[in-house]
Amino acid sequence: MAHLTASVEYGMHCLMWLAVADDAALSSRELAELQGVSPAFVAKIFPKLEKAGIVAASNGLRGGYRLTRSAARISLLEIVDAIEGDKPLFDCQEIRSRCALFDGRPPRWATQGVCAIHAAMLKAEQAMRESLAATTLADIARTVERKAPAAFDGDVRAWLGARNAARGTQRKPRRRAARTGDHA
Amino acid sequence: MAHLTASVEYGMHCLMWLAVADDAALSSRELAELQGVSPAFVAKIFPKLEKAGIVAASNGLRGGYRLTRSAARISLLEIVDAIEGDKPLFDCQEIRSRCALFDGRPPRWATQGVCAIHAAMLKAEQAMRESLAATTLADIARTVERKAPAAFDGDVRAWLGARNAARGTQRKPRRRAARTGDHA
Repeated sequence: MAHLTASVEYGMHCLMWLAVADDAALSSRELAELQGVSPAFVAKIFPKLEKAGIVAASNGLRGGYRLTRSAARISLLEIVDAIEGDKPLFDCQEIRSRCALFDGRPPRWATQGVCAIHAAMLKAEQAMRESLAATTLADIARTVERKAPAAFDGDVRAWLGARNAARGTQRKPRRRAARTGDHA
Repeated sequence: MAHLTASVEYGMHCLMWLAVADDAALSSRELAELQGVSPAFVAKIFPKLEKAGIVAASNGLRGGYRLTRSAARISLLEIVDAIEGDKPLFDCQEIRSRCALFDGRPPRWATQGVCAIHAAMLKAEQAMRESLAATTLADIARTVERKAPAAFDGDVRAWLGARNAARGTQRKPRRRAARTGDHA
């Protein structure tokens, strides 16, 4: 198992599609279906991205999720933290204070400052975070757009257009349609 | 919960004590008692460190674990990998190949090279690994030695000496004493 969960992978792929889709609002179900992944799994990720201010949900027939700002201003670090909750690399339990020689009363020199092992871990974590902070969602979207043939963008738009048109033909009970983020 | 487990923290602290103890062999029980942590937990970490060639076990009355080389030649990255098993930061499930538009037959352009998201994660992981590779066990031991008062080194040696002397007074059945790593 990797350090980061599959939620990070799924969340990043969904956000990449929102970046590619420009200003179109997409529901979490549409994003899941477009990628052939579990809609239930994807639906659990979006409230975290919304809470972190990365996406906003709109309701109504054309509702769904949109990025709250340009993909060039959304870093991969923000996405990881939104989904993983700023999980630290290392959790220091202050083992140094328990040394048998201190007999339960660790002297000041033994516990002052950050533990040397913890400090080295914080430095490594910082290096990782700086790398993730330096990459944006726009960088990712650009790489995909560069690889794809010219026609792919049109194919995506046609697929999304068809899904959007299908929304209009689906009759919904009024109470459900009035809920915020109905399509999200 | 942190990305790295408590085993990494316990393992690093034990190895730091082995670095401080110079060439003295210490059992995992002695290392655990010196630090006031669970002997059973520490005992599970050492076979991994031994397998990775970071420590070697010797048997007999003065037996125990020793570092296999100078602490200046043991990086924190080696220790993390020995204990965590080179766990990746991110596990790419190749979601890109499942796109609904490909209808189960992803084109070559869509799957060639590393996925852009995976590539960004590998870069961040590499930054973290380089930072851990640049810090050695000797760096950690030096920081602790710098903080501790001059008398502490003598106190540690006295504690270890007393524990070592106590080994001689403990009568052991011959079969147990003959086992490799009896004191490890």
